[in-house]
Amino acid sequence: MEFYIPTKVYHEDGAVLNHSAEIASLGRKAFIVTGKSSAVKTGALDDVIKALESNDTDYILYDKIEENPSVEAIMEATDTGRGHGADFVIGIGGGSPMDAAKAIALMVQNRDTAEEVLYKELKIKALPVAEVPTTCGTGSEVTPYAILTRNDKKTKQSIKHRIYPSVACIDAKYLKYAPVSVIRNTAIDALCHLIESYFNKKSTEYTKMLCKYGFRTWAKNRVALFDGKDFTYENYNQLLFASTLAGMAISHTGTSIPHGLSYYLTYNKNIPHGKAVGIFLPGYLNFMKKSLASDYNSVISDIGFDDLEEFKLFIKCCVGEFCITDKDICEMVQEMLANPVKLSSVPYDIGEKELRDIIEYIR
Amino acid sequence: MEFYIPTKVYHEDGAVLNHSAEIASLGRKAFIVTGKSSAVKTGALDDVIKALESNDTDYILYDKIEENPSVEAIMEATDTGRGHGADFVIGIGGGSPMDAAKAIALMVQNRDTAEEVLYKELKIKALPVAEVPTTCGTGSEVTPYAILTRNDKKTKQSIKHRIYPSVACIDAKYLKYAPVSVIRNTAIDALCHLIESYFNKKSTEYTKMLCKYGFRTWAKNRVALFDGKDFTYENYNQLLFASTLAGMAISHTGTSIPHGLSYYLTYNKNIPHGKAVGIFLPGYLNFMKKSLASDYNSVISDIGFDDLEEFKLFIKCCVGEFCITDKDICEMVQEMLANPVKLSSVPYDIGEKELRDIIEYIR
Repeated sequence: MEFYIPTKVYHEDGAVLNHSAEIASLGRKAFIVTGKSSAVKTGALDDVIKALESNDTDYILYDKIEENPSVEAIMEATDTGRGHGADFVIGIGGGSPMDAAKAIALMVQNRDTAEEVLYKELKIKALPVAEVPTTCGTGSEVTPYAILTRNDKKTKQSIKHRIYPSVACIDAKYLKYAPVSVIRNTAIDALCHLIESYFNKKSTEYTKMLCKYGFRTWAKNRVALFDGKDFTYENYNQLLFASTLAGMAISHTGTSIPHGLSYYLTYNKNIPHGKAVGIFLPGYLNFMKKSLASDYNSVISDIGFDDLEEFKLFIKCCVGEFCITDKDICEMVQEMLANPVKLSSVPYDIGEKELRDIIEYIR
Repeated sequence: MEFYIPTKVYHEDGAVLNHSAEIASLGRKAFIVTGKSSAVKTGALDDVIKALESNDTDYILYDKIEENPSVEAIMEATDTGRGHGADFVIGIGGGSPMDAAKAIALMVQNRDTAEEVLYKELKIKALPVAEVPTTCGTGSEVTPYAILTRNDKKTKQSIKHRIYPSVACIDAKYLKYAPVSVIRNTAIDALCHLIESYFNKKSTEYTKMLCKYGFRTWAKNRVALFDGKDFTYENYNQLLFASTLAGMAISHTGTSIPHGLSYYLTYNKNIPHGKAVGIFLPGYLNFMKKSLASDYNSVISDIGFDDLEEFKLFIKCCVGEFCITDKDICEMVQEMLANPVKLSSVPYDIGEKELRDIIEYIR
């Protein structure tokens, strides 16, 4: 088994300012990559700018990363980064800007390459990356992954390069500005990471440790998540911690079926990522139950539920309304059957029938 | 809180040969640092040489590292390393050669410096280091520490530099050649790391996770350790895993009182390190009990014991005979009171009386 998490993780109140010198030491000119509003609203962008200015480090701000960024969006940002001579990248936000930061770091470092490079297995380096999460789901601050929307393939896909952030600055205070729907969706995304990593052919004692601790940390917040209100600083702190642990786990195992299925819903129905994966989580757990996964009962209890029915109700309450047609199911199943990497992550035999069962379980 | 473990850890049967290209990629000429016999007996040296030769990488073997290596021994090895133009270092063995490898990597890289540099706070780099453990206690394969014997100060002390190994190749098969006393002493050292990190002012949710998982992994082997026979491959594997987790934990927190006290016994009475720390572990746990440490009961149960009395008997059986005089106690207490770093690691008020109680508890 392998363990490799080279990112320097700071999880504390004031993380960005406390470690400003270390962030600034990554280069001479930062390319700050964010979405339109959350980096401003949360105060994270302000903190990053202060951190750079206090170390006399130059920067360019690029705040046009949308949710589920496309390869085209990455190349547009890359042009700006190349044009200004950026030599390190700072991602601020949820998974979209943090993943984008890694892909942009690769493309800016390799100046004369085109977007095809993202999906080729090549030994090339990326600029150093620092990440500042403002949601509690992706774990992208410690993973080597960058998932982009591929319009040519009508889905989302991870780039072929493993780009570990150099520094992650994690601060719970940024979360208090997020809408309840974002907290819920991202917390469910983190739970999916934990469960898909735990029940995974690639799981090891290291990843199980991360997942188990993550389950119990996550479980402490299930009442607040169910109620959808009265989130405390401690809730935000624990949910962030759980999502970073989950990120460390999937860095080793990858994700599995719920993530694989979700990309269809996000691409075709514009369903936010966390919600799109959460929809399939009760079905994936039901599949584990039917497959007699040895740890099934302890996982259900570790995440804070009496049984799968209770968990299903919880997920239904958190994800809200959605519509999956018979045509969707057919297409999702076909897409999944054509994805050997995700299928091979499942520790039990899985085929068309099982995939249908997983999808239909929550309907 | 912080999390930083940049070492690439491979824990598997055949780890060295499976990852030979990665080891060889650390440089062009390896300086292999080992003790006189265990690296040969275990087959680890053979594997490392095969790994280098199969990648056409040159090497020099230095097999004169003794237990608790002195600064003088490090400088002698450094001369050889410098003379042959080594550009990376491979440590094979227990804590002594693995710690030595880090200190030598620092001194060979900084060619024109003398031994004083080891104990100065300077921003200097070390050559890349790979580590191959053949005991299950030190965790040195993932820690940034190098503890050396300082004859000028009549004790053991960590150098001032944090040198993280680049690669750790962990293979349980090397352990089967170790004498029972070595397995016991090093397994107890690992348990000390776990407990001293857990009950530590610097402990965090990350280090607690590592310690808790380490406790439970270690506990599975307590019967074999008590019996001192019939160790299985799985015992070796789990004890190695527990010791690596412990290393990851102390990389963040450092060790505490039992380690601080042990250096006197090792320096003055030549008591092996694991045994020397183990002697103080029941007393340290008793101090935690008296201080009403909130997790005291769960730790005793996680390491596999009903109560402290049972644990004390276990330790007495494993460490065997030793003699601590009243004069020793006086000197140890004075040495400890003059060590503010170790004292400040303790989460409760501690003074002369408490130190005496910890030392005398096992007598």
